[in-house]
Amino acid sequence: MNKNACYHELTLTFQRLSRFSHLSAIASWDMFAMMPSGGSAARGEALAELGLLQHQILTDKKIGERLLAASQEDLTDDERANLREMSRAHKQAALLPESLVEAKALAGSRCEHAWRTQRKNNDWQGFAPNLKEVVRLSREEARLRAEARGGSRYDALLDIFEPGMTSKRLDTLFADLKSWLPELLATVVDKQASQRVATPQGPFPTESQRQVGLEAMKMLGFDFDGGRLDVSAHPFCGGVPEDVRITTRYDENDLLSALFGVIHETGHARYEQNLPRHWPGQPIALARSTAIHESQSLFFEMQLGRSPAFLQRILPTLRQHFGDQPAFSEENFIAWSQRVAPGYIRVDADEVSYPAHVILRYDIERALIDGDIDVDDIPALWDEKMQHWLGLSTAGNYRNGCMQDIHWTDGGFGYFPSYTLGAMYAAQLFQAARKALPTLDSALANGDFSPLFGWLQQNIWQHGSRYSTSELIINATGEDLNSQHFRQHLTSRYL
Amino acid sequence: MNKNACYHELTLTFQRLSRFSHLSAIASWDMFAMMPSGGSAARGEALAELGLLQHQILTDKKIGERLLAASQEDLTDDERANLREMSRAHKQAALLPESLVEAKALAGSRCEHAWRTQRKNNDWQGFAPNLKEVVRLSREEARLRAEARGGSRYDALLDIFEPGMTSKRLDTLFADLKSWLPELLATVVDKQASQRVATPQGPFPTESQRQVGLEAMKMLGFDFDGGRLDVSAHPFCGGVPEDVRITTRYDENDLLSALFGVIHETGHARYEQNLPRHWPGQPIALARSTAIHESQSLFFEMQLGRSPAFLQRILPTLRQHFGDQPAFSEENFIAWSQRVAPGYIRVDADEVSYPAHVILRYDIERALIDGDIDVDDIPALWDEKMQHWLGLSTAGNYRNGCMQDIHWTDGGFGYFPSYTLGAMYAAQLFQAARKALPTLDSALANGDFSPLFGWLQQNIWQHGSRYSTSELIINATGEDLNSQHFRQHLTSRYL
Repeated sequence: MNKNACYHELTLTFQRLSRFSHLSAIASWDMFAMMPSGGSAARGEALAELGLLQHQILTDKKIGERLLAASQEDLTDDERANLREMSRAHKQAALLPESLVEAKALAGSRCEHAWRTQRKNNDWQGFAPNLKEVVRLSREEARLRAEARGGSRYDALLDIFEPGMTSKRLDTLFADLKSWLPELLATVVDKQASQRVATPQGPFPTESQRQVGLEAMKMLGFDFDGGRLDVSAHPFCGGVPEDVRITTRYDENDLLSALFGVIHETGHARYEQNLPRHWPGQPIALARSTAIHESQSLFFEMQLGRSPAFLQRILPTLRQHFGDQPAFSEENFIAWSQRVAPGYIRVDADEVSYPAHVILRYDIERALIDGDIDVDDIPALWDEKMQHWLGLSTAGNYRNGCMQDIHWTDGGFGYFPSYTLGAMYAAQLFQAARKALPTLDSALANGDFSPLFGWLQQNIWQHGSRYSTSELIINATGEDLNSQHFRQHLTSRYL
Repeated sequence: MNKNACYHELTLTFQRLSRFSHLSAIASWDMFAMMPSGGSAARGEALAELGLLQHQILTDKKIGERLLAASQEDLTDDERANLREMSRAHKQAALLPESLVEAKALAGSRCEHAWRTQRKNNDWQGFAPNLKEVVRLSREEARLRAEARGGSRYDALLDIFEPGMTSKRLDTLFADLKSWLPELLATVVDKQASQRVATPQGPFPTESQRQVGLEAMKMLGFDFDGGRLDVSAHPFCGGVPEDVRITTRYDENDLLSALFGVIHETGHARYEQNLPRHWPGQPIALARSTAIHESQSLFFEMQLGRSPAFLQRILPTLRQHFGDQPAFSEENFIAWSQRVAPGYIRVDADEVSYPAHVILRYDIERALIDGDIDVDDIPALWDEKMQHWLGLSTAGNYRNGCMQDIHWTDGGFGYFPSYTLGAMYAAQLFQAARKALPTLDSALANGDFSPLFGWLQQNIWQHGSRYSTSELIINATGEDLNSQHFRQHLTSRYL
């Protein structure tokens, strides 16, 4: 008999599942980046059918039996870590009945597809009924998950994205932020008000922006033999590790939005492109969590992307495409890229006001899933919280208010905290890299980012899901998540 | 108990299969039109895994039992036609073992992917080993199919594409062509040699060619809400009826190649976009056969696309994008578009020399599958037959010789005859439309193509696979395939 026969059987099943996930990932990317509107219903049905199949395979009784049997087999540490991730995937799936999986997929795809037009038209009335259905199904999912694992309903969704994270821990982390961030934000805004900063003058033609984006991706080590850059209504990083698809959107009057969007997604992409390849199709080879994923995108977008070292290196490309102008002097461009200005749109936010966008969404989605508020309450709450945090009113402005993000349209409740966790992890990681590499700052100043990428590769990318998030971060930085690094980063960059 | 319970169960299974085919179609389109090279291996594996699943579902014993039971149920004519198509699909699949299905998918995807680079590099040495593996598996497939159904091995593959077609019937049809086509070709070439025709002067920038292509698609009724135009190494029409993906390739020195490629694929696309929608996911709602599919593409490309009516209507768009020039006078442009000039490339061939390209491939692929020749014999045979038919040598020129087509790379042996069958059907259909619509020619002359499209919709598109090919053609034209219409068409247009 085969040594570790049950474990081996499981690896074959998970490889098969991974191949189906490949097709699902590409069809989903296509749906957002390529598909004409008439294809929507058929695509939604096709993806739901595949999702159902994956759910059936993953929740098969035999898998449960094999997981149990494999845990008695003679496994290496890595195999045991893989088994832990398999088991988690199986349990997560087994909690949900097929009918709910299918209904959620269909309702999500319908809501997301309609949202693309409704957002443009500021059509909250049209959007709300679709969202209500998605919320109804997500609440049902949360109820089932919470019953099985204990804890609150919202915590049960949070755990999908960041295993082990709880709203209690988030509340502590966010309470810390709330204690110093508003004052820091006010101080920075006040300080910057006295600076005279020239704004680059457009228009910035889409094709030139695309070229600049591609150039930035090249500087940042994106592997074009294993990925693409395209356009979608909401920027994202999709595809599969062997073929990573990132997207952005262009506004000819706005130079920063697409460029920093591309840099953000390139962070996600490099993580995916550098995940381990020697466990083909295995859960251990997947990215650790959404918070760690966002730590990589924000590492690229904020830590590195808004550093003088990177901005200096991208400037010649900007001058080449948009002509030289006073705003493109080194000093001005750095100051301009580091402006802090509360705005409506999360993905365009500076890193000081960004956490406000996330905490606002976290508060609302938690109350929504736990049943404390309803979909109809969202716009007023959004307006109230935007006024409170950033002094901006979104009354009647759904497009740039509560309809701006794609996450809720397909039931991605519990994702948003990942962004601020990611920002904190990113600051902590950069700090650790600086400590580990004494010559890092001089390499960066010379435009050489490779030591930094090498450090990420060694400490984050290559590990996939081998360790828990805590273990990964402790191994990389010597301590578990510590929000003080984020505070220090903001203070030293902006004050 | 449910009325027609077995039939109903079957419709659910085929709907499920159709959803998986949707994902396979989109992932395949992506592979040709979007995927970076590094994604190839993982994509091949993912598609092979899905193909295996489809094969398992389709060959399940229960399907066989239900097909038998359903044939005793109280079905309408359409349901019975659907059952006939289901049964055909089941039997076709059941002949092949899973291992062969998977091996063929993987070998095909490897060969096709490598071919893209090898063709550019004229690398027959690199290509041959991959092709040999594909041929080996295709022969095995043909052997299994032939054993089960009788007839030759090649006939067994032919039947996949054009149900009921045999090489015996093809030999008769092609013998007829061989009896008059070489002389017609020589006469036309001779006649045109004395005409002075100006060639449009390039370069023709890719983006302008794309705009012209889109304009042609619009004129020809392509529904952009349910499809796209993109670029690939080998033009094709893919996707699903709700979302048809056509591709072309651009050469800045060649005006006709991309434009008539687009028109050809638009013919395929309109067929797909107008297939019946009231049998969702059922085999009866699929296109009848590859020959009927090619009859629509060649109807668009040759019958309509090279008619004075269409050429006159596209001319203003050409002048707009490429400037006015003597070659764009109406008379010259028609003469130029109807030039007959034997060349190397099948997809760029005029309609008089086109059948030579097909008969050559038919002769070679039949001998290859029946085991009379081997892969190593192909280049010499190709050269010999090109010399014989068109007076052109392809010695050493694999790129524009036996490596020019994608079909063999993934084992599509038996497809090529569809093109010439399609050309014959197209001529016969146009003739019938003209008879049925006395005002057709004046409508066309006024640039109104809608009566023609309406006739195709009523006689071909809306029927899907309701009838056999013969029934469909007899219903539409009053007789079965008759190659004399093609002869008359060529004679009247070119002599």
